[in-house]
This record gives sequence, C-alpha cells and structure tokens, in this order.
Amino acid sequence: MKIADFEVGLDKPFFLIAGPCVIESRKHALEVAKMVRDITGELGINTLYKSSFDKANRTSGTSFRGPGIQEGLEILQEVRETAGIPVLTDVHTPEQVELAAKYVDMIQTPAFLCRQTDLIEAVGACGIPANIKKGQFLSPPEMINVTKKAEAAGGKGRITVCERGASFGYNNLVVDMRGLAQMRETGCPVVFDATHSVQLPGGQGDRSGGQREFVPVLARAAVAAGISGIFMETHPDPANAKSDGPNAWPTQKLKALLTVLQQLDQSTKAGGFSDTDL
Amino acid sequence: MKIADFEVGLDKPFFLIAGPCVIESRKHALEVAKMVRDITGELGINTLYKSSFDKANRTSGTSFRGPGIQEGLEILQEVRETAGIPVLTDVHTPEQVELAAKYVDMIQTPAFLCRQTDLIEAVGACGIPANIKKGQFLSPPEMINVTKKAEAAGGKGRITVCERGASFGYNNLVVDMRGLAQMRETGCPVVFDATHSVQLPGGQGDRSGGQREFVPVLARAAVAAGISGIFMETHPDPANAKSDGPNAWPTQKLKALLTVLQQLDQSTKAGGFSDTDL
Amino acid sequence: MKIADFEVGLDKPFFLIAGPCVIESRKHALEVAKMVRDITGELGINTLYKSSFDKANRTSGTSFRGPGIQEGLEILQEVRETAGIPVLTDVHTPEQVELAAKYVDMIQTPAFLCRQTDLIEAVGACGIPANIKKGQFLSPPEMINVTKKAEAAGGKGRITVCERGASFGYNNLVVDMRGLAQMRETGCPVVFDATHSVQLPGGQGDRSGGQREFVPVLARAAVAAGISGIFMETHPDPANAKSDGPNAWPTQKLKALLTVLQQLDQSTKAGGFSDTDL
Amino acid sequence: MKIADFEVGLDKPFFLIAGPCVIESRKHALEVAKMVRDITGELGINTLYKSSFDKANRTSGTSFRGPGIQEGLEILQEVRETAGIPVLTDVHTPEQVELAAKYVDMIQTPAFLCRQTDLIEAVGACGIPANIKKGQFLSPPEMINVTKKAEAAGGKGRITVCERGASFGYNNLVVDMRGLAQMRETGCPVVFDATHSVQLPGGQGDRSGGQREFVPVLARAAVAAGISGIFMETHPDPANAKSDGPNAWPTQKLKALLTVLQQLDQSTKAGGFSDTDL
Repeated sequence: MKIADFEVGLDKPFFLIAGPCVIESRKHALEVAKMVRDITGELGINTLYKSSFDKANRTSGTSFRGPGIQEGLEILQEVRETAGIPVLTDVHTPEQVELAAKYVDMIQTPAFLCRQTDLIEAVGACGIPANIKKGQFLSPPEMINVTKKAEAAGGKGRITVCERGASFGYNNLVVDMRGLAQMRETGCPVVFDATHSVQLPGGQGDRSGGQREFVPVLARAAVAAGISGIFMETHPDPANAKSDGPNAWPTQKLKALLTVLQQLDQSTKAGGFSDTDL
Repeated sequence: MKIADFEVGLDKPFFLIAGPCVIESRKHALEVAKMVRDITGELGINTLYKSSFDKANRTSGTSFRGPGIQEGLEILQEVRETAGIPVLTDVHTPEQVELAAKYVDMIQTPAFLCRQTDLIEAVGACGIPANIKKGQFLSPPEMINVTKKAEAAGGKGRITVCERGASFGYNNLVVDMRGLAQMRETGCPVVFDATHSVQLPGGQGDRSGGQREFVPVLARAAVAAGISGIFMETHPDPANAKSDGPNAWPTQKLKALLTVLQQLDQSTKAGGFSDTDL
Repeated sequence: MKIADFEVGLDKPFFLIAGPCVIESRKHALEVAKMVRDITGELGINTLYKSSFDKANRTSGTSFRGPGIQEGLEILQEVRETAGIPVLTDVHTPEQVELAAKYVDMIQTPAFLCRQTDLIEAVGACGIPANIKKGQFLSPPEMINVTKKAEAAGGKGRITVCERGASFGYNNLVVDMRGLAQMRETGCPVVFDATHSVQLPGGQGDRSGGQREFVPVLARAAVAAGISGIFMETHPDPANAKSDGPNAWPTQKLKALLTVLQQLDQSTKAGGFSDTDL
Repeated sequence: MKIADFEVGLDKPFFLIAGPCVIESRKHALEVAKMVRDITGELGINTLYKSSFDKANRTSGTSFRGPGIQEGLEILQEVRETAGIPVLTDVHTPEQVELAAKYVDMIQTPAFLCRQTDLIEAVGACGIPANIKKGQFLSPPEMINVTKKAEAAGGKGRITVCERGASFGYNNLVVDMRGLAQMRETGCPVVFDATHSVQLPGGQGDRSGGQREFVPVLARAAVAAGISGIFMETHPDPANAKSDGPNAWPTQKLKALLTVLQQLDQSTKAGGFSDTDL
C-alpha cells in the first residue's frame, strides 16, 4: 500500500505518524513539523505530520477544540508545502472527509466513531489513504467488519487499521498485543498508536490523564509484535500542550526512541511471521 | 422532570421506553405500538414508544438500516396520533436533532456517540427531553461531564442518562449496578436499558449476539438498585426482527415481566436511598 | 438443601451469613453474635454467624490475622452455645477442613482458592454444608467444574456457591448479575456476598479499600435477580474493624437493609424464574 | 541476583525457564530436558528446566495431576544430574516448599496462590531462588506487597516476579506490557510467562484452551518491553501433552523463536530504560 510517496507494509520498515494532538497555531504547527521532519529525515523514517483541526470529543465541553476545519486544513497545507512533509488529520463527519481529502495526504477516523457506517463509507470513497482507529470497545477481529465497509465503498488498498488500547475496567486502557497480529486478517497494514494507548480516560475528572512514561515500553513491544506503522503524538512542551499533554511524547526525546524502534523493527521483520500460522 | 405529560424521577414509579429496535414498516410500527400501549395502559405505566429510523452503526455494512429520517419521523408521528402514545427516536448528528425534535416527544443519543460534543450540545439545545446513553467505554461518574455539556447548551431539566452495559473483555458487556447509583450525581433521572445490556457485541462474527434470557434478571436487579426509567426493546417475533432480535424481549411476555418490576420498584422506593449516603 | 436446622433454596426466603470479617476477641464475637441474632430473629431470617480465625491472604504481611484455628474454633463454639446461633468459618487447607467441621455448622472456602482441587475435595468429603466462593478470575459457568469436584468427593446436596465480584480492570470488582442466574446450573443454592463485592482490591496501596455505600444497591439488585442466600460482613464500628472495615456494613443499619431485602425477595420469588428458560 | 550458577537482571541477557507443564514420565522428562539443554546451550542462553510434580488446580477434578511430590522431585534430580541442566518446579504449600528446596535450583509459586501469606513466607525462608507468579486478579504494583512478605521472611535477593496475564472479561487473559515495567519497582527481576499468557481459562468447558499461535507475538513484545527472564512451556508433541497442550510451544520451533528474542533483547537492553523515568 502506498501513502504519499512511500510504500508501507510488514515487509517494509515502519512508517511514522507524528505531531501535536491539536493545531495550536500556524506558527507552532510549522515549528513542530520542521522538528519532526528533521529528526525522521535523519533516521530515514517515512513520516506523516499529524494534527487535528477540531477536537470533537473532549471530555469537557469547555476545553480547547482547535482552529476549525477551514483554517486548520490551510495550516496543514502550508506545513506540507513549507516543511516538505506529508500531512494527516482526523475527520468526524462525511462532509469533513470530502473537504479534508483535498488538503491532506491521509485522513484518520477517531476510535469512538469506528462503527458509524456513513463515516467509514465516506472514508472508503474519498480516494486517499485512511487510518481507521479501532474503538476501545471493539475486539480486534471485529475490525474486519469495519474495513469491509470501507472497502465496499471503494477504499480497497487505501486503508490502515490502528490499535489505541481497549477498555480495561474504568479509566484505564490496555493494549492487547495479540490484536496487532489478529488485525492483519483485515488485509490492511496495522498501525500502533503509542500515545493514546497510555491515556487514562477521564482519569483527572474533567479531563483524561496519561502515562507518558509507558510510551517507550508499549512502542517497543508493539514494534516487536510486528507492525507496519507507529502513531505517536509529540509536543516540544507537553506540560503546556493544549490537548493530551499527559500522554504526548517530548519531541526532544523522539530521536532516541525511534532509534531503538528501528533496530527492533529490523530484527522482528527479519525473523518473519510464519510462526503465527500454527 | 417532565416527559410528554408525565413526571419522572426516583420519587415516582418507573417510566418505560419500549418498542422494536428499528422501524420495520408503517404497519408493523402501528401494530406493535398498540400492543405496547395496551399492555402498559392496563398496568398504569407511563410509556414512550421507541423505534429507530436509521441504524447508523450496524456491525456490518450490509445489514438493514431502516426507512430513513423523513419517512421514519412521519411514521412515528402517525404512531403518536393513531395509537395515542408518546414517541422517542434516536439521532446521530446535530442536523437530525433539530428535525427529529419537531416530530417526537423525546430523543435519544447512541452510546458510541456520548462524547461527540456537537451532538450532545445540539441535544441540550433542542428544547425537548433527551435520553443520553452512556458509552460502553465510560465510567459512570464521567457522565457528569457529558450532562454538563448538554446543560450548558440549554438542556437543564430535560436530560436523562442511560446505562446499557460496559465493555468487559471482548464481545461481552457487564452491567455494574453501582453505576446506576453513581449516575444520580448527574442530577438527571437514571434509565436502565435492559435489552442492549444483554448484547454480545460482534458475538456472531458479522453481527451482534444477545442473551434475551437474562433480560428479566438484569431488569429486576436494576429496578431494585433504584432507577427512574426502563428501556426495553420488544418485538412480537424476535426471531424475525430486522435488528437486534437476539436481545429483544418478546412482546407477549412484556406484561408478566413489568408486573414483577412494578412490585420491586414500589418496595425499593418505599425503602428510600439514604443508605447510599454513608 | 439443609443448613443447621433450616432449609435453603430458591423456593424459600433467603438465608443470611453475617458477622465481623475476623474474630477480634472472644468478648467481641459474643457481643456481635447476639446483636446479629436479635436483629435477624426479629425479622425471622435464618442466619449463620460468620467470622474467620485466620486471615490467610491479607494484602500486607504485617496486618492482623486473627486468633488462630484452635482458639478461633473454640470461640465460635461458645458463640453457638451461648448466643444460640449457628456458625460458619472459612478454611484454607484440607487439614483445617477436617478440624473445623467438628466445630461449626457450615464451612466456607476463599475465592482465591476455588481451583485448589485438594481443598475442594476435602470440603466435599467433610460431611457438613460448605459455601464455595467463586474466584474473581472465574466465569460463572466454570463453577460447575468446581462443584463437580466437591460432589465427586461426597459433597452432593451440601454445597452452596457464592459470588463476590469479578476482576474488572485493576483494583476494582464488578458484580455480573447474570452470573447469579447462570450459577443455578450447578444445581447448588446461590449466595451473594454483598460486602466483598464492594472491595477495591489493593485500592489503598498496602490494603484493600471498600465502597460500603454500595452494599445496599448491590444487595437489593442481587435479591431481585434471585438468590438463595446473602453473605454480609457486619461490624458495630467499621472504622475500627481489624479487617475489611471499609466494606463492612454497620450492624446498626442491618435491620433497615434486611427489611427491604425481605420485601424484594418475596416479590421476586413470587414472580418465578421461568423467564430465564427462553 | 544469582540462580544456579548464572546471574540474572536487566543488565544481563534474558534467562529461560522451559519444559513440559507436568512431569509425564521419567523417560519423557529426560528426553525433553536434553532437547532443551542442547538448544539453549547452542544459543548460549542460561536455562532452567521446568516441570510440575502435581497440577493442584486443574479445571476439572478428573484431569491428570502428575507423579506426586516424592517421585517428581527424584525425577527432577535425575534430570539435573543426567542432563546437566538446573531445574525448577512449583509448590503449593509451605510443607512442599521445604521438601522441594532440597532437590531443585529454583521454586515457583502458582498465580492463584500469590496472596497466601504462609506460602509466600515459606518461599522467602527456604534459602533458594523463587519465581512468584502474579495473580490474574492482581495489579502490577500490588506485587510489591507480595515480595515484601517474602523478603521479610528472608527472601531478599532471591525472588523473581512473573507476569502470566490478567483477567480480561471471561475466559480470556490480557498481558499489560506496562506491568513488566511497573513490576521493576519490586526490586526483583521480572520474568514473562509466554505460554500461560495465551491460555483461555475454562475456554473448553471442562478444561482451558490456548492460543499457541500468539506465543511468539507476546514473547517478542515482552522482550522488547524489557525483562530479565522468559518462562515458556514446551513440548515435543503438544497435541498429546498431558496438561496445557493448547498453549505449549513446540520444542522443534524453540530455537527459531529464541534466536529472534536474543536479538530483540540485545537491542532493547542496549537502548536502556531511563526513558521510563519521565
């Protein structure tokens, strides 16, 4: 499968989706995009810059939501042109899909919305690659029903599926590494979201908490389980991020983490995955 | 709080929301509505007839979705006028909220969408009562954040909150009866959905299974825990229902079940709830 | 099934197992036993006084464990003779089963040990009734394997099974009311433990927390689901209890709670359970 | 920490605990031990041969339990002398601890029994290394309370802690890779049990099922998360194993799997774990 100008799959090194949770400002977006571009360029990792124009499902109604779709998409377009890095954003309605597809290289659907048929079909029909996040309430094999909806609408060969943790009691998520293997049955490249997986939903009352300290543990584990891509929100100053700061990975520490992940990815993929065919 | 022409709350007998999952046809809707009206009229239970015009989040993209919004709302309007029973339907977008509010006595939002801020705010602003279902991925106290969104948009005094089971491992839900007490902290009447709580999500591969045999157990338990309302999908022929048959309660058995629930409700409410203030 | 001098079953009013978690002293045991006897005698509820001689699985190794088996059993014997109430205690090894069976009217096995074959077989062979708690890690239907072990060893007609909550994420338990119906398939009377079900395991770091405020909610729900017996630890001064204080029910509030439960029990059992045979 | 004649820890390559679930016969034990010894010797992996003398907590009371303690320990002694490989077995009572400690190089306690104070203290006092499995019902940080019990009894510097999956709904386990990092806080080397983690408890009615195909996925993930040791039951003919066949790893495929794990282990440990100190 091709995204922007690179190929992705279990027989390729992992690709990366990285950036701040929400577009905080034009200036901030450009700055972080250049940081991400430089780090990943040096390591030779194919990368999309990710940022949301609207946080449509914040825990509290009074939290920052972002610049909105039109301004947001224009900022992402400028990021792509200026920083020279492909871009991804997430969409919440069929109408947004159509508009966003004109501006970005890949779109993404939120986990909570993975069962909304109209949205998934719009994504399948939009003509560009899409990363569909698995709901926290869904078992990995159920993603086959989801990708079938997108493929029936025209998305065949343009869909990736993404794990971001499953509900585990209250205010906690767990990543079931078996699911990364099971989701290969969709026929779509599997992506692991290393930062939302350490969210503590509603863990701070009117906002979600996060366990940033476990991002490396889970990222290493997922790469060794065997995946096609990694999603990782990053921020140069997580403590002051306007969304999801507690689980953002500090941009300053991105290179060190990615370096280890590259080695693990290489060893894992050299070993092959036939062992799962027992 | 007032719904249609009756009052609801922990100091009143429970009210009921009942009907087939989806509007199967005009004729079917009218028939079932009259059955429900007659049974609940005889028992003196305040009741809303519920049916969906669009199943927007079916497991599979090829399942029946319903007649669509315009035709569906007109059928519900006819049900209300002909059968003389207030009606409820569920909505998935802010646009649908506005339209549906002109036709029905109460609207409802799906569990998967409980965190979509625009939808919840539209519901809060629509002027009629609304039943907000708690997501399978949400802890009961987090519903306070949800109702605050609706209330800030104008919904104060018009919202009920509804439990329909929480994710418990894969392809299974569990009802935490503590949550029915905890959700009273929202200040909104609490409703228990006795039929979706026995769903087995994705339990039949490309569709959800259900454990109809546990509807009475859970309904009795929830009423004794102490609730303001019960939601229960019912169908005269569950084996041939066009949606959610495995967890629908047979209309023929509705009276017997409701009779026991009325007795439990009376005993529970006579006992009072001060014991939860320890 | 007969326990002490009374019959238990779904066609009888519920029986009660109540008392402080651990034997704190001879004097304390006698005092609380008389309180429990008076309250339940007045209400006409068949009751066993419960207390442990050894807390063998405290969270921390430095917590109070109790008087030990010999002194503990003698205190329980004195309670039985002086207060005129049958007694129950829990056992942890086959050797303890044999000894305890000479002193008490019913024994009980801890949830963590429900899979230890030697213990369950000793319980089956000991000649007196036994309450086997379901492990927090066990699905309700798996209790059939457990009771079969006890019955094969001679326990047929002398076993009750007991729900005390299932693991739900970390440091939390959930009671699945469906399980109370499912466990009827063992052919053994089903008991609900209303106080351990509100434990928060390890919730206070080096000890378990508890949500005493939810005891009435869960007890009411379980009685309405339909059970043969209730287990409830009670203490006249929970704040100073030597074990499990956070989830003990205050003895002073026992009568009010039991009174409501009796009404719910009567309504539920009058309604019958044929509805679960769908 | 030293086990047999080798050092273990996060700064050393992982050590291995491997062998058939139960001692099937003297001959079988010797054969498999030599296979394990040869494979791991070639790869330079420090290894203990593991087998149980008694399966004390089988799902069903009629399943094979093993040769018993005396015969079992003598077989293990012969394995050690003949095959030249250190041995480990698991124990269920304080009495067994004392006896087993005379025969084996390391003992192990079952997950269900991790909260039994007497057993854990006996293990702490026995003078040889011990692997304590975390209960399926325990959060990772709670293992600190367990290891403190063992250390207070004399076990300091001789304890490893072991993850084997946490209860995740019914009849399923999930491995939370965060826990492998969290358990480092015990100060004890962390071991990952790759085969019991893929058990489906009670998944076949009167016996547990297993998902052998996910052993490599979870083993790779755990090694990349960062661990000191791996536990893996292996059998030359899993389909005919007398216990836990569905989750045993075929001995013929052991070398290929271990080879990849060695590479991942090296990359992970070279990268260091300071990133978890954010």
